[in-house]
Amino acid sequence: MISTVVYRGNIIFTKSSEKFTVIENGYIFVKNGKVDKIKSELSKEDEVYEIIDYKDKLIIPGFIDLHLHAPQYANLGLGMDKQLLEWLDEYAFPEESKFKDLMYTEKVYKKVVKELWRCGTTRSVVFGSVHKDATKILMDLFIKSGLGAFVGKVNMDRNSPDYIIEDTQKSINDTEEIVCEYSNKSRLVKPIITPRFVPSCSSQVMQGIGAIAKKYNIPVQSHLSENISEIQWVKELHPECKEYGNVYNKFGLFGEVPTIMAHCIYSSEREMNLIKNNGVIAVHCPTSNLNVATGIMPVRKFMEKGITVGLGCDISGGHKISIPNVMVAAVQMSKMKWLESDKTYKPLTTAEVFYMGTKAGGKFFGKVGSFEEGYEFDALIIDDSSLGDLDRTIEERLQRYIYIGDDRNIVERYVAGQKISEPKF
Amino acid sequence: MISTVVYRGNIIFTKSSEKFTVIENGYIFVKNGKVDKIKSELSKEDEVYEIIDYKDKLIIPGFIDLHLHAPQYANLGLGMDKQLLEWLDEYAFPEESKFKDLMYTEKVYKKVVKELWRCGTTRSVVFGSVHKDATKILMDLFIKSGLGAFVGKVNMDRNSPDYIIEDTQKSINDTEEIVCEYSNKSRLVKPIITPRFVPSCSSQVMQGIGAIAKKYNIPVQSHLSENISEIQWVKELHPECKEYGNVYNKFGLFGEVPTIMAHCIYSSEREMNLIKNNGVIAVHCPTSNLNVATGIMPVRKFMEKGITVGLGCDISGGHKISIPNVMVAAVQMSKMKWLESDKTYKPLTTAEVFYMGTKAGGKFFGKVGSFEEGYEFDALIIDDSSLGDLDRTIEERLQRYIYIGDDRNIVERYVAGQKISEPKF
Repeated sequence: MISTVVYRGNIIFTKSSEKFTVIENGYIFVKNGKVDKIKSELSKEDEVYEIIDYKDKLIIPGFIDLHLHAPQYANLGLGMDKQLLEWLDEYAFPEESKFKDLMYTEKVYKKVVKELWRCGTTRSVVFGSVHKDATKILMDLFIKSGLGAFVGKVNMDRNSPDYIIEDTQKSINDTEEIVCEYSNKSRLVKPIITPRFVPSCSSQVMQGIGAIAKKYNIPVQSHLSENISEIQWVKELHPECKEYGNVYNKFGLFGEVPTIMAHCIYSSEREMNLIKNNGVIAVHCPTSNLNVATGIMPVRKFMEKGITVGLGCDISGGHKISIPNVMVAAVQMSKMKWLESDKTYKPLTTAEVFYMGTKAGGKFFGKVGSFEEGYEFDALIIDDSSLGDLDRTIEERLQRYIYIGDDRNIVERYVAGQKISEPKF
Repeated sequence: MISTVVYRGNIIFTKSSEKFTVIENGYIFVKNGKVDKIKSELSKEDEVYEIIDYKDKLIIPGFIDLHLHAPQYANLGLGMDKQLLEWLDEYAFPEESKFKDLMYTEKVYKKVVKELWRCGTTRSVVFGSVHKDATKILMDLFIKSGLGAFVGKVNMDRNSPDYIIEDTQKSINDTEEIVCEYSNKSRLVKPIITPRFVPSCSSQVMQGIGAIAKKYNIPVQSHLSENISEIQWVKELHPECKEYGNVYNKFGLFGEVPTIMAHCIYSSEREMNLIKNNGVIAVHCPTSNLNVATGIMPVRKFMEKGITVGLGCDISGGHKISIPNVMVAAVQMSKMKWLESDKTYKPLTTAEVFYMGTKAGGKFFGKVGSFEEGYEFDALIIDDSSLGDLDRTIEERLQRYIYIGDDRNIVERYVAGQKISEPKF
């Protein structure tokens, strides 16, 4: 049965990163969960459809978060004065090790999914922990919630604390078990291969999970070139590889299947070209980069090369799950990059970061993150009446919501045409 | 009549910028609105006092905002992709010119005061517009609210758009009128001399208001060394002065009375020494500096010189009134400065930015911003139970609130011992 619903409101989205597309008081026709068309006015024959009128509110695509660590949720806003290694040892790793306890897992992961819902993140790409069962719990919670997600069991079998390191073969087997069990369990929630990063993954484990990725056509996520000492370390571990990215590439983990790499702050020209040629998506995580004091990704340079760049909140390096918060930080850091580069790299615009946090990130999920024909209807309804005068352009109202709004302004969330209520767990 | 009230809770504040002082489950004795003492346990003779038990909540000093432009409130989150001059012409000046309309003034200024209340800013130092009557309205609203503030009528009689420029003599007269009318009207709300910045103030006006400052002993606020072209401009306008700060100094506007200077991003060594020697307070406005793309103030260097540095939200260059938001940005920018300076300037710690946003800024108001003996009891009661596990150190809980909390976590506000309810206007 074909079902069409029409949503009315101030529609705004980014077809391209150059500018917003705005249909003031427009109508989005959604057919079987997908955008069919947008019209400025209804005609006689449209009267047969159900019309949901959001009046003066904004209708925008749902937010896409390409990088976050679910098991670090309880560390949000903690350890922010620590140096990276101290922070990993005192906060990140001890917390992640708790996910062998499934009661604790359930308690925290319920909060993570609720918080994503609350912040309007309709789709996300998520690191779990090394724990197979905990990862399955997270996937099941996402399925229950109606939100979309790729969720990865982390692989780490070297250079990691004893209490969290994995046996190589078990790491590979557990990964395959999840892939087999979850590949077709849900349309919206899928497994993803997740080597933590090169220093914590042996060649054997990368080989093993690379083969799984290929065999089952499962996408990959990891970290890349986040800081200089890490890059140096990778060079020492893999002198045979010219660039950090080449290590993943060697094991089929760099674009053979759809691949996401977080950070890419210090990627060389050669690594950028590899990213570009292999169709890898780079994820900019500005709040995390600020908090962990890693540096400023030259996003403009990536864009000029034609690399797809999405956004990630990267909790708990990043301190908030909110993608608008990340968008603001992305603009702000690009302004610092602009100064630092002697005004070579133009600052990012609001349209550009909005594109990154919707359509660019959405590519990883298929046709998601825009309101063009054929796109899944992932949408947020924004009531910005508490933020100031509504007698502004729709672009201005959206920018204001991004900068000064919060979850209180999101009044409805849709994923693939379904209205998603607050998870009841 | 002497009245003492005892507040119980987890008390945390910064005597010095080096570290937090914490009294878990402690008692603050407040006598006639001032902190008398703090005790860890009550003794028999304390039973005579009224005890207000905030149980597991945090008790922290109220936030102090040393720099914000009240008439730019309606521009919050707007024009963020514009360059500074464009933004001034398209957003800032047109908006400020509206404050000749007293109906509009009242509408906006009510929102400003409410928003300060909502965000826990118990004391602020505020730029008004050039308009005398609008400035009086703002002062009266502050008085009604119970919050503390210094409020300045702006002076600008050159190099400004026609529709907002002042006549020199009227600028001086209006300033004096406000000073006379408001110096003793309220204990908590006071006038402040407010030349916009050197380029928009003639020598004549600076002379005039400098004389008023001296005659009535009224403090001064302005902008200093925010960006490089501005400094260049000042040099051209005042070739007789070696540094930007010397221009203010020449007219008695740089420390002869208590003085606040916002930004100080590009102050030279010589200007810093002048700031230091004249006891001028520097205001760091990191969110504004990011949005307006001016640069990163070398806060560590100022601190090492022994200069007092406070915080300012600087709306609407800054996009949020919240001081915790400014504290996070201050830490983050200091981490970028640390990288940029090849790790010379150590990042600011949470204790340091908290000190800046409470006790350092509070100095401008007398004994404000700490819970030491004799300090006015300006306090916020923070319920952080929605932010995560309470089984953390009090320092961790405060840091978490600063990073991920918001106005919803502030359950009570006190100014000078008085509980302040949401302004009823």
